[in-house]
Amino acid sequence: MKIAIMGYGNLGRGVECAVGQNDDMELVGVFTRRSPETVKTVSGVPVYPADCLVEKREEIDVLVMCGGSATDLPEQTPEYAKYFNIVDSFDTHAKIPEHFARVDQAAKEGGNVAMISVGWDPGMFSLNRLYAGAILREGRDYTFWGKGVSQGHSDAIRRIPGVKDAKQYTIPVESALNAVRNCENPELTVRQKHTRECFVVAEEGADRVRIEEEIKTMPNYFADYDTTVHFITEEELQRDHAGIPHGGMVLRTGKTGTGGEHNHVIEYSLKLDSNPEFTACVLAAYARAAYRMSREGMTGCKTVFDVAPAYLSPLTAEEMRSRLL
Amino acid sequence: MKIAIMGYGNLGRGVECAVGQNDDMELVGVFTRRSPETVKTVSGVPVYPADCLVEKREEIDVLVMCGGSATDLPEQTPEYAKYFNIVDSFDTHAKIPEHFARVDQAAKEGGNVAMISVGWDPGMFSLNRLYAGAILREGRDYTFWGKGVSQGHSDAIRRIPGVKDAKQYTIPVESALNAVRNCENPELTVRQKHTRECFVVAEEGADRVRIEEEIKTMPNYFADYDTTVHFITEEELQRDHAGIPHGGMVLRTGKTGTGGEHNHVIEYSLKLDSNPEFTACVLAAYARAAYRMSREGMTGCKTVFDVAPAYLSPLTAEEMRSRLL
Repeated sequence: MKIAIMGYGNLGRGVECAVGQNDDMELVGVFTRRSPETVKTVSGVPVYPADCLVEKREEIDVLVMCGGSATDLPEQTPEYAKYFNIVDSFDTHAKIPEHFARVDQAAKEGGNVAMISVGWDPGMFSLNRLYAGAILREGRDYTFWGKGVSQGHSDAIRRIPGVKDAKQYTIPVESALNAVRNCENPELTVRQKHTRECFVVAEEGADRVRIEEEIKTMPNYFADYDTTVHFITEEELQRDHAGIPHGGMVLRTGKTGTGGEHNHVIEYSLKLDSNPEFTACVLAAYARAAYRMSREGMTGCKTVFDVAPAYLSPLTAEEMRSRLL
Repeated sequence: MKIAIMGYGNLGRGVECAVGQNDDMELVGVFTRRSPETVKTVSGVPVYPADCLVEKREEIDVLVMCGGSATDLPEQTPEYAKYFNIVDSFDTHAKIPEHFARVDQAAKEGGNVAMISVGWDPGMFSLNRLYAGAILREGRDYTFWGKGVSQGHSDAIRRIPGVKDAKQYTIPVESALNAVRNCENPELTVRQKHTRECFVVAEEGADRVRIEEEIKTMPNYFADYDTTVHFITEEELQRDHAGIPHGGMVLRTGKTGTGGEHNHVIEYSLKLDSNPEFTACVLAAYARAAYRMSREGMTGCKTVFDVAPAYLSPLTAEEMRSRLL
């Protein structure tokens, strides 16, 4: 199947690599709103201006949207779902219903399959919440994130005057996680579930006490958490914090038996050296599903909940049953 | 939807409890090949002779097969798939393709949906192997079982002359598991992955040295493992080893990036106080899917790979998207 990428940042580069790991996929091009000559792809695949996308329609089976959820995807996904089977990683949880409705209408108009909110959360974590909740009907869900870099929180620190650069790690609280794993069904506040650790490069002469105070009291981002701030040099940030690792766990604990006497723990966990590259791998698998479902005549907006797992695998049904089942 | 149970052992009782946890399901009856008057259900639901099943066809939406994989299911599932939507937990991995073919033919003849090999392995573990393999294309799969009771191994010990009763636990080797989690991609022999611990009640005057030797050298079951044998009293077995816990983990580790420089670990783990009750919960969720897929006009044999996750949940599509995605 022929894949195209719209938007070429960390995620777009990740999709380029992921497509290269799949023998049944071919990358036909990267599309960008920047000047194509300023963009250099890893694999040497050609770069085209975004304006050319629709005219290349016949050469593309699935378009993988690699823009951001804040402003790019809400506009681009409904627009391109008219012309292409698409996959996006829209991750603003609260706005998913609205995004779904707009993309669904566009995809149906165009007769295409549009997979939204594909990645790990939303995505694989959502799937695990669904499976676990359907199995253990009387139980409780817990999601922990980290240890990993939160781009949004790092950006929020960078906006503070006097901050040159920063990286923020979200860290699950081990004791809370263990209480969940031990079926203690704890009620956990925001503060009890995660801590936040910040590595900050201050500008020369900046007031570090004020910066630390501004971080720790920032509403929504840090005020509700136990936050640690470390001031480090630019070199240290480059050397020790260049990566974009992430991960987390989805757990459900539940009871069965005539008197609820048996406890069960379902846990799904991810430990990722590169958040965007892993997300890209999930996008590639769902691109395969979008292509296949479209060829079967399906149309409209889909989420991971609507995709039978078999559509994701390059194996045949017989191979899956004999090797994986 | 109206559920019936065929076969009433640990699994059948588990399904009875699981149905009770699902508001959209009603248990219409338990069917047995024993004399119905000798069978007492937990919930008081009526017990009928297996011979009456087909005549009660109109009252049953999904029949949950609760017999064993050795002799019951290979015969019963194809037989009843002619008349009912069914779910079974057939778990003889090597014979799944053959079972699939026979059930598929019967289910198509009858215009029914027949879900086979539903549970946790095969079942949820299989699903996780599929998802993880579709995402991390360059990587390795590992499955560990335990700590938990293996019924087959316990039975094998009980067949040794001089053994009154026995329970066998399969235990994953922690160091092997950690090597996998650390992305060391170890090559692991059977012996390196699991150990086996046996609790044996010997008959009075039996030769314990011979029994221990017979266990440890038993081909297929124990010879390839580091096995520990403890002789205990019948009272100790009853007191300390009455449960049927199990569980395990499916892991896939893989690499991404232009030079495979980033490692990723996907791990799915189960910790179950009651193996049959958990399996029963999975069967109940897939009974819901079988019912819905049948109402949409689908027919034939299906596995967990063929079922879009949304079919499993009692939530509406909108609820799933807003609460779980």
